Amino acid sequence: MKSLLLLAAVLGIAAPALASDQPTPPATPESVVAQAPAGDWVRIAPDDLLVMQLSPAADGSARKIVIQLLPAPFSQPWVANIRTLAHAHWWDGTSIYRAVDNWVVQWGAGEGPGFKPRPLPKGVEAPKAPYVADASDPAIAAVLGPQRNAVVDILQAMLVKPRKQQAASAPAPYARDPYAPHPFFFHGWPMAASRQERTAWPVHCYGTVGVSRDLAPDTGTGAELYAVIGQAPRQLDRNIAVVGRVIEGMQYLSTLPRGKGNHGVYLSRSRDTPIVSIRLGSDLPAASQPHFEYLATDSASFRHYVQVRANRHDAFYTVPAGGVALCNVHEPIRAVPSGG
Amino acid sequence: MKSLLLLAAVLGIAAPALASDQPTPPATPESVVAQAPAGDWVRIAPDDLLVMQLSPAADGSARKIVIQLLPAPFSQPWVANIRTLAHAHWWDGTSIYRAVDNWVVQWGAGEGPGFKPRPLPKGVEAPKAPYVADASDPAIAAVLGPQRNAVVDILQAMLVKPRKQQAASAPAPYARDPYAPHPFFFHGWPMAASRQERTAWPVHCYGTVGVSRDLAPDTGTGAELYAVIGQAPRQLDRNIAVVGRVIEGMQYLSTLPRGKGNHGVYLSRSRDTPIVSIRLGSDLPAASQPHFEYLATDSASFRHYVQVRANRHDAFYTVPAGGVALCNVHEPIRAVPSGG
Repeated sequence: MKSLLLLAAVLGIAAPALASDQPTPPATPESVVAQAPAGDWVRIAPDDLLVMQLSPAADGSARKIVIQLLPAPFSQPWVANIRTLAHAHWWDGTSIYRAVDNWVVQWGAGEGPGFKPRPLPKGVEAPKAPYVADASDPAIAAVLGPQRNAVVDILQAMLVKPRKQQAASAPAPYARDPYAPHPFFFHGWPMAASRQERTAWPVHCYGTVGVSRDLAPDTGTGAELYAVIGQAPRQLDRNIAVVGRVIEGMQYLSTLPRGKGNHGVYLSRSRDTPIVSIRLGSDLPAASQPHFEYLATDSASFRHYVQVRANRHDAFYTVPAGGVALCNVHEPIRAVPSGG
Repeated sequence: MKSLLLLAAVLGIAAPALASDQPTPPATPESVVAQAPAGDWVRIAPDDLLVMQLSPAADGSARKIVIQLLPAPFSQPWVANIRTLAHAHWWDGTSIYRAVDNWVVQWGAGEGPGFKPRPLPKGVEAPKAPYVADASDPAIAAVLGPQRNAVVDILQAMLVKPRKQQAASAPAPYARDPYAPHPFFFHGWPMAASRQERTAWPVHCYGTVGVSRDLAPDTGTGAELYAVIGQAPRQLDRNIAVVGRVIEGMQYLSTLPRGKGNHGVYLSRSRDTPIVSIRLGSDLPAASQPHFEYLATDSASFRHYVQVRANRHDAFYTVPAGGVALCNVHEPIRAVPSGG
């Protein structure tokens, strides 16, 4: 189907298996994922997932969104608040009340004219906590140290295929990040680090979920959350608490009408999108719990995946990029059968 | 309004003017734009604009989209085709038939089951032309050469504020691009260059419009177009013809429902979004012609704007990024009164 192959080539379907005496077709991100052994996938615990149910769409179809929470040692005071709020069913009956194109959608109880005050559960307060992790945590020390595990480094990942096996004309891969000295992956998450400052932090990509707040030094509680629906707003990194990412149903957030009020807030609450419920995966009945897995970022499959993302050689591409942005790696995450 | 100030601070409103004996508030991108003198703005010719009218939204409101066409020496054979197609009213009655989350929406006549063949105007063929410009063009030679005008260089732009005027703790600005050695701006457009290869090319950002095609060496005609609705897919740079960018009405594309068929094509033509018309701005009656201007990228205002984008010091931010991605500069473009 002419002029649709853009997608077939870029996001598309893995090539069918060929007999072993045929030349191997160039690897694509999809083929690398399809061929990754089961042992390279890591289950995401249901306790690390939020399931958000919006009111049905205009055509009556369900709108379910799954959010993965950020692992320790990052943003854990906010993540703890979010677990408390979900346990308390605090978001049930709240709404998505703000949408700004190429920026964020935002939800919670809101505040101001037209919004009903909704007291927070006991113990949910704005944490006095940093947005970065430092080398006092052994995992971060390992990332920052000279003996750090090279496989988490995105540049090393791009170099996994020995240069001598690449075409002589292949550009040198590089992982230059406009916002941080050292982009890397940590248990499946894109991160950035400064070895000079001895800190590491989660970054804002498409689908990232963070904690809305007022001006510094307020840090927000986690009751009002936003999700990024456009170009990665990396200038927010280290300035606000990242707490998760949308791993399913992103289209139900990204297609919401943009708000016409101040700061993209909808002009009336009747235009909000109602939130039916937000639950921790582990609070759902066993049969309803979400099951997802991610490609281990210390696996050979992930290194190969990043290398291929950085240098496409399949039929659609004539000029491999020679690099890949941290927010364009698109860490592979997939749903798995509940019995799997 | 607590927890909404995220937007106020980041995209927000310029601070009101203060008496001259008060301390100057920190510059924001918005304040720099608001204070840019009239002479730093450049009019966009109506002949370089496409006006796309979609069918009205469900609530009856109009959906108008304005696309700016790419200037010479980039992609001009496709841009010429697009002008021919617009003159011929070729797109009237076609549709947006594909939408993929965090990727693209695509429009034109389509091809395949359910689509009606629509012959192209005489002379509209897939150009045999490169996706990059080289130093045989004097403008590109100037960009690539050792005597190039430093003001087009994004790194130089970030350095416009002398280091000694910055706080001692300010990080060194840098413009590391994961996809190209030399990001820069050219007559208001984000671009990338390789001085080693002596080439420069337009890049894929949010809102970029490009020419759908089949596998290489096909280059597409310009009849089927896509617009980026997610994270900048920079791996497409140099692999496909960039021809423009959406400068108004982007939300009417980005909020379209995502397609559920192969490659995000809608399952039936009844789900497409009809295109009422696409016109060159210069083909419209004078009173209806679009009038826009961009902040000259060789102006002091633009250099200051980039510097502030790279290092936010206003009340919301506690950690300036120290850099800015090419696709996160968000070149200032604004509508102007038709008599302006």
